[in-house]
Amino acid sequence: MLPWSADLAGRLDHHVIDSHALRGNPLGDPHERPLWVYVPPGYDDDVARRYPTVYVIQGYTGHIGMWANRTAFRRPFPELADEVFATDDVPPAIVVYVDAWTAYGGSQFLNSPGTGQYHTYLCDEVVTWVDAHYRTIPTRDMRAITGKSSGGYGSMVTAMLRPEVFGALATHAGDALFETCYLPDFPSKARTLRDLYGRSYDAFLADFRSRTPLTRPDDELLIETYGYAAAYSADDDGTVRLPFDTNGALVPEVWERWLAWDPVRMARQNRYADALRSMRAIWIDAGNRDEFHLDLGATAFHQAVLDAGAPKERVHFELFDAGHGLIEYRYPLALGWLCRQLAS
Amino acid sequence: MLPWSADLAGRLDHHVIDSHALRGNPLGDPHERPLWVYVPPGYDDDVARRYPTVYVIQGYTGHIGMWANRTAFRRPFPELADEVFATDDVPPAIVVYVDAWTAYGGSQFLNSPGTGQYHTYLCDEVVTWVDAHYRTIPTRDMRAITGKSSGGYGSMVTAMLRPEVFGALATHAGDALFETCYLPDFPSKARTLRDLYGRSYDAFLADFRSRTPLTRPDDELLIETYGYAAAYSADDDGTVRLPFDTNGALVPEVWERWLAWDPVRMARQNRYADALRSMRAIWIDAGNRDEFHLDLGATAFHQAVLDAGAPKERVHFELFDAGHGLIEYRYPLALGWLCRQLAS
Amino acid sequence: MLPWSADLAGRLDHHVIDSHALRGNPLGDPHERPLWVYVPPGYDDDVARRYPTVYVIQGYTGHIGMWANRTAFRRPFPELADEVFATDDVPPAIVVYVDAWTAYGGSQFLNSPGTGQYHTYLCDEVVTWVDAHYRTIPTRDMRAITGKSSGGYGSMVTAMLRPEVFGALATHAGDALFETCYLPDFPSKARTLRDLYGRSYDAFLADFRSRTPLTRPDDELLIETYGYAAAYSADDDGTVRLPFDTNGALVPEVWERWLAWDPVRMARQNRYADALRSMRAIWIDAGNRDEFHLDLGATAFHQAVLDAGAPKERVHFELFDAGHGLIEYRYPLALGWLCRQLAS
Amino acid sequence: MLPWSADLAGRLDHHVIDSHALRGNPLGDPHERPLWVYVPPGYDDDVARRYPTVYVIQGYTGHIGMWANRTAFRRPFPELADEVFATDDVPPAIVVYVDAWTAYGGSQFLNSPGTGQYHTYLCDEVVTWVDAHYRTIPTRDMRAITGKSSGGYGSMVTAMLRPEVFGALATHAGDALFETCYLPDFPSKARTLRDLYGRSYDAFLADFRSRTPLTRPDDELLIETYGYAAAYSADDDGTVRLPFDTNGALVPEVWERWLAWDPVRMARQNRYADALRSMRAIWIDAGNRDEFHLDLGATAFHQAVLDAGAPKERVHFELFDAGHGLIEYRYPLALGWLCRQLAS
Repeated sequence: MLPWSADLAGRLDHHVIDSHALRGNPLGDPHERPLWVYVPPGYDDDVARRYPTVYVIQGYTGHIGMWANRTAFRRPFPELADEVFATDDVPPAIVVYVDAWTAYGGSQFLNSPGTGQYHTYLCDEVVTWVDAHYRTIPTRDMRAITGKSSGGYGSMVTAMLRPEVFGALATHAGDALFETCYLPDFPSKARTLRDLYGRSYDAFLADFRSRTPLTRPDDELLIETYGYAAAYSADDDGTVRLPFDTNGALVPEVWERWLAWDPVRMARQNRYADALRSMRAIWIDAGNRDEFHLDLGATAFHQAVLDAGAPKERVHFELFDAGHGLIEYRYPLALGWLCRQLAS
Repeated sequence: MLPWSADLAGRLDHHVIDSHALRGNPLGDPHERPLWVYVPPGYDDDVARRYPTVYVIQGYTGHIGMWANRTAFRRPFPELADEVFATDDVPPAIVVYVDAWTAYGGSQFLNSPGTGQYHTYLCDEVVTWVDAHYRTIPTRDMRAITGKSSGGYGSMVTAMLRPEVFGALATHAGDALFETCYLPDFPSKARTLRDLYGRSYDAFLADFRSRTPLTRPDDELLIETYGYAAAYSADDDGTVRLPFDTNGALVPEVWERWLAWDPVRMARQNRYADALRSMRAIWIDAGNRDEFHLDLGATAFHQAVLDAGAPKERVHFELFDAGHGLIEYRYPLALGWLCRQLAS
Repeated sequence: MLPWSADLAGRLDHHVIDSHALRGNPLGDPHERPLWVYVPPGYDDDVARRYPTVYVIQGYTGHIGMWANRTAFRRPFPELADEVFATDDVPPAIVVYVDAWTAYGGSQFLNSPGTGQYHTYLCDEVVTWVDAHYRTIPTRDMRAITGKSSGGYGSMVTAMLRPEVFGALATHAGDALFETCYLPDFPSKARTLRDLYGRSYDAFLADFRSRTPLTRPDDELLIETYGYAAAYSADDDGTVRLPFDTNGALVPEVWERWLAWDPVRMARQNRYADALRSMRAIWIDAGNRDEFHLDLGATAFHQAVLDAGAPKERVHFELFDAGHGLIEYRYPLALGWLCRQLAS
Repeated sequence: MLPWSADLAGRLDHHVIDSHALRGNPLGDPHERPLWVYVPPGYDDDVARRYPTVYVIQGYTGHIGMWANRTAFRRPFPELADEVFATDDVPPAIVVYVDAWTAYGGSQFLNSPGTGQYHTYLCDEVVTWVDAHYRTIPTRDMRAITGKSSGGYGSMVTAMLRPEVFGALATHAGDALFETCYLPDFPSKARTLRDLYGRSYDAFLADFRSRTPLTRPDDELLIETYGYAAAYSADDDGTVRLPFDTNGALVPEVWERWLAWDPVRMARQNRYADALRSMRAIWIDAGNRDEFHLDLGATAFHQAVLDAGAPKERVHFELFDAGHGLIEYRYPLALGWLCRQLAS
């Protein structure tokens, strides 16, 4: 009964995974995490058949429950993904929806003393669990990772960090080229901290936690940036270092720590260039009006991928006419392409 | 396991109601409609007890499935509503979530040859069904209606039109004072039609239906305005009359038809003033930075309510510091207040 | 020595005219007014030759001294106008720059008890003075009036009101179709008055006069709207009536007084349609991104002009790619065209 | 006859200075430059008296002719400056208005192979000429330099570079803390170059020169940034190096050249810290809503000035409620303060 709900041709299982890596995480976030696993039509009919797996991760402030959100005139991605396998000539795959929410709104899918061991959780725990519980083809050549925004970021860096786990990736408007996607907003954040919080991030955080969140100006931008810093530049003791000071001036030693995690810069390092060259499929796209300039990041990452020696036939690059929001209709395009590439 | 899901202290039942009024509606929208009914904690324990009922309706482009949507750092209204009864000292009530979606994104909860008999469906079918299936106190004195934006509009006009059905209302940023909330956007719509669609609304509608919706500039504004016109100024044969011409000039005879449905103007008519005066509770609020100037509409409606003779102690009016979006934290405030007023 | 200054091929005379009509004007503005008269190259050589005259009037908040303003990479209109006659194959004309500044920033070139007798001053005093002091061809067929924004407005209405004085007009982004150019901003003005001035225009005016003007939000919009009201809807005793109340609601009886001065609506009246039909040249243009939607007004006025029976060959209509500002490069195009039309 | 013109209590002389330093400048800009010198009331009465001198420089896209521009409800700075001496209890001074326009819209008052020797022209030629032609007190202790935006920038760096020439400075919203005022706009510039000019600045420049300037999106931002690069990072042969590449990525070696000219960073070097400590007066202000975040730059520069050891009583720092534009009413405040400080 559209638009209120839909039956799937495949099946979406809801699990909870108990993560060892996330136990005792510094933010006190749960170590038991929801995990959704989708099996394509026919999975239950041919019990000997094994499938490639596509891991799907989310953008900042996303948690797994939001995959069920419905918006006007649109359908949720799990339904679009189901349709890819139900109606298109696409080789079937298992699709895994992974949650990496934190109290700051996200983890960037990295291990950090500021947030927790989300990289280990994703690559070592979730993948192992899925391979143990579903009929996957448990090889890196048959695993892809995809996401949008911070999820696109996570796809890029996770594939570079762990090419033995993932052999393909897709990034939609993924965070990249940090001087274009993050840095331009630092001045207005510094100003908001000055005008509303006595130049103190701690004062903001205390206030944010004390009231209905997202009701004051720049709430979202301020919490996000803090979360990025917690992921990119937290000290071993968990202290979060910010890349700009109370005047908005860059703090070079912290900013360098951020840049070390920029996919565009990582891709220029031999280790990660090797990983990219080994990928069986790399999809890169972004809207040409992206409010965070992630079209520039996508273009720069694409160039770095080609410079790393990735064969052109395994790389899809596209700028499309859109901003950052409301682009979930792009996800099934990459999903179908990834599945075809994995099967080829 | 927050923030992904929550158990309710009460119970939320999902039904489908088969509407006679919506059969054969002009847009071909379903006549079988989802209906959610929430019963408060204790409902199943004391089977003799009867309860007041609060009907909840949605803003434009809202459909019932969206009540389950989760957003970062926030909780869905059904959980907030449950908490009102679970933790606050609020007299319990049944809460009914009504769907009035159309192919244009909404119905304004009116009967119209342009969209369908949504007023009849709401007031005569849904209410009757709920009274028949739940232990309500089936009197107007024990029924309230509440909503935000177009849902606030629906609450105002429905209570004025049918005071024998509803004895209380709440409106959050409800559409009102049409020259401030609708008219200012007409010129940019006319311009978009000129620049993208050869000055033709039909060309827009055809295009809108042929592709992924909400990907082109002003998609949302254009479809919304068409939907308002379908609700306010459709001819008997279903022809939708627009209140502005291809140059953006007002079409006075159509605009007058819109104004006849403006809550501020309705409230100045004797019949509706009588209805308002009879209300046991009227909650009116809006954000003081509302992008559609609905704070002005709220203020004007409040004045009209007082001028109609509604006693001050039964009227709550408030402008709060916010825009139009992300104000669902206001809904439980009104819900609790309404329940207390109904019980008093 | 560009860009700092320029010599003219013609001559620009600076005069002061002592207006009887403006004596005792209600705002205490000067009745002695600056008047600039430009004579084209050759004027002093052939002392028997007589010339057509083009009157140039300014937009809101413009006063005559601003014609000398220089902006980066651009040249002032008097230099561009001089170039039209110096280098193009354009029949020479006298160009008269008229000042109609008031303490509210403008007069709309009308007679009003709220501002003064600016229409009389322009049509009866300035024209007479120029004809007396310069070798004009003193007939309506050889007089044009042109301007931008409120100056375009003044050109349209002055030519309609006084076809025996002016036989041609040009309007660049002239105020027209009042529901598109004025009305959309009323709500935000009402809100600003509420938030900053206790809902009182008098409080705003007192504050505006007490400090450096244009330093507070909406200063310009608030003073402009008051000035328009002073021009369009002042009572005989000078009381200024506003077209919206403290909630932003339209005040119909005042708004009707405004609409009576809308060029689009005036052009539909027989008297003014006759005037338009009699024009020897009508230039109408606007930027297609005009922030005040004056492209819509231009289109509607153009349609009204054609409907009035003005021959197409005497009408130039054009939307160009621009907003409302920085369009002075359009003025010489109209000037040259007008001069050719007058000479034809 | 305000607001059209004004008589001065003092006298404003218009000169042309023939600069040797600007001969053969790379942009072909004139080496003969307009120079305006204002002498205060009484200058001609007591021919033995000598005066301090305040040099006034302009923001980007400013040329000297613009000091005569009139805007609604405001007065040009030369009139405001005259009033400072005419009506306030301020020690009189000579005020010198210097032109440093270039074909790119400005020079940043530096010597550069990309634009010309504007620093030499200002410090060695203009100052010498003024001392030779007017009764100045020709010592650094009796010379100040002031300006807004790029003029504020020029005041900061010129005083640091040449403390033997200038003993005091004022900066209103001066360019500073380059990562906050310049860098945030680089991505949108890169995008505009991509979308409109095939990623080529040369294509933009050719187009800009071929048509009416400032009619296309981002014209002003693109020409400005090119001008900054011409001032900060031109090679010896005049080649202009840009601090971002076609993807918007920072080019570190060029960006470092820019940062070497950042007043905040310069002030941390011993040589320039010594200069700042030697200043007799330093005025720093900015609007707290400055669109280029120059309030952050002002705050950082102020901190650097204090850290350099400048005595607090010689430093005035203030953030006021404004954006970047329409703040010329601030200039006379600094002018009066500077004159008092010089005289003390």
